[in-house]
Amino acid sequence: MLSFITTDADISHDALNLALSYCACESFNKITVDGDMSTNDTVLLMANGAAGNSTVEIDTHEFKIFRKYLLAVMKKLAADIVLDAEGATKFVTVKVKNAASASDAEKVAEAIANSLLCKTAWFGCDPNWGRVIAAAGYSGADFDPEKLSLFYEDKPVVEKGRDAGTPEKELSDLMSKGDFSVILDLNAGSSDYEIWTCDISYEYVKINADYHT
Amino acid sequence: MLSFITTDADISHDALNLALSYCACESFNKITVDGDMSTNDTVLLMANGAAGNSTVEIDTHEFKIFRKYLLAVMKKLAADIVLDAEGATKFVTVKVKNAASASDAEKVAEAIANSLLCKTAWFGCDPNWGRVIAAAGYSGADFDPEKLSLFYEDKPVVEKGRDAGTPEKELSDLMSKGDFSVILDLNAGSSDYEIWTCDISYEYVKINADYHT
Repeated sequence: MLSFITTDADISHDALNLALSYCACESFNKITVDGDMSTNDTVLLMANGAAGNSTVEIDTHEFKIFRKYLLAVMKKLAADIVLDAEGATKFVTVKVKNAASASDAEKVAEAIANSLLCKTAWFGCDPNWGRVIAAAGYSGADFDPEKLSLFYEDKPVVEKGRDAGTPEKELSDLMSKGDFSVILDLNAGSSDYEIWTCDISYEYVKINADYHT
Repeated sequence: MLSFITTDADISHDALNLALSYCACESFNKITVDGDMSTNDTVLLMANGAAGNSTVEIDTHEFKIFRKYLLAVMKKLAADIVLDAEGATKFVTVKVKNAASASDAEKVAEAIANSLLCKTAWFGCDPNWGRVIAAAGYSGADFDPEKLSLFYEDKPVVEKGRDAGTPEKELSDLMSKGDFSVILDLNAGSSDYEIWTCDISYEYVKINADYHT
């Protein structure tokens, strides 16, 4: 990934740096395709001051507006990477809610989003909740399986650790639309984390097995 | 995975426990198929004493012999899991040598063995060393890329961070035999770690996408 972003804004070096760090954490650092990272993953932000505004500094109203729109641009670019991933047929938003800590929320979301068993189930439109909860379990986060709930979009799949009874066909149909959220409420605290990811298909294997360097 | 092992040996409870813990670390805990773990992964070892020997205790000569043969059995069972993995066409031994610490050696081996880009390259008989070294890099281990060497079996692929010049065809042919070692010498210390794993093929995706629960 090589991402180059330019702006005409006149903005101080410190403000530009801070805005970029914040937005990178909230965009490119919250996507995963296969868990692999590249040595050349890069995001550059350059400002030339051509807009002629008075220089934007940290902690001003203008800084917040700049950061807000920078984040919108970077989220769009990050989402495009997932949409354009090798062989992806599903755009999946993994939301972990009410984890015991920020680090737990992140660990659980990463484990689910990178689980090959979850990703192949999504490819097959299989709302296999066992695989999702198993990934949460091996993430090492602290939670009580008897208290968690799982949703695909607004449809309950697991309630307090038990199958919620939503017919599999309803869930499969929802998944077959190609863009859905997997929402795991751990009911263990108040930390949330969200990652954008995709499924793993035959085409992913083909592209990455055939491409020789 | 449900593994049940029985022995006729008369052996104390403590000795049996210790032998099992040691051998599990050196066998089942050193394999990976897709990085996912199951909630029912279990290994049980039962001794009935029917052999009528005098009870084996920890730290005796007999204990070492018992542990040696138990390890042979458990390594065979662990290897069988990898050989029988969904759609696997390659049995790959990942050996990390001369890491700065035991934890670094393990981290690097785990990162390579679970990298989807490495596993699809292996499926395609592509000796893509960039993917192997990138995985070592993002593992977080401490090493100097200018000092490492990489081998496929006894064939040099990278020497001191540079392509070793072995023709790609020679390496591909070696990989196409279906059982090979990827040996990464980090030249950063004296810790080694070895994992058995496999490639990821179309068939892996098919089996895990089609199997609904």
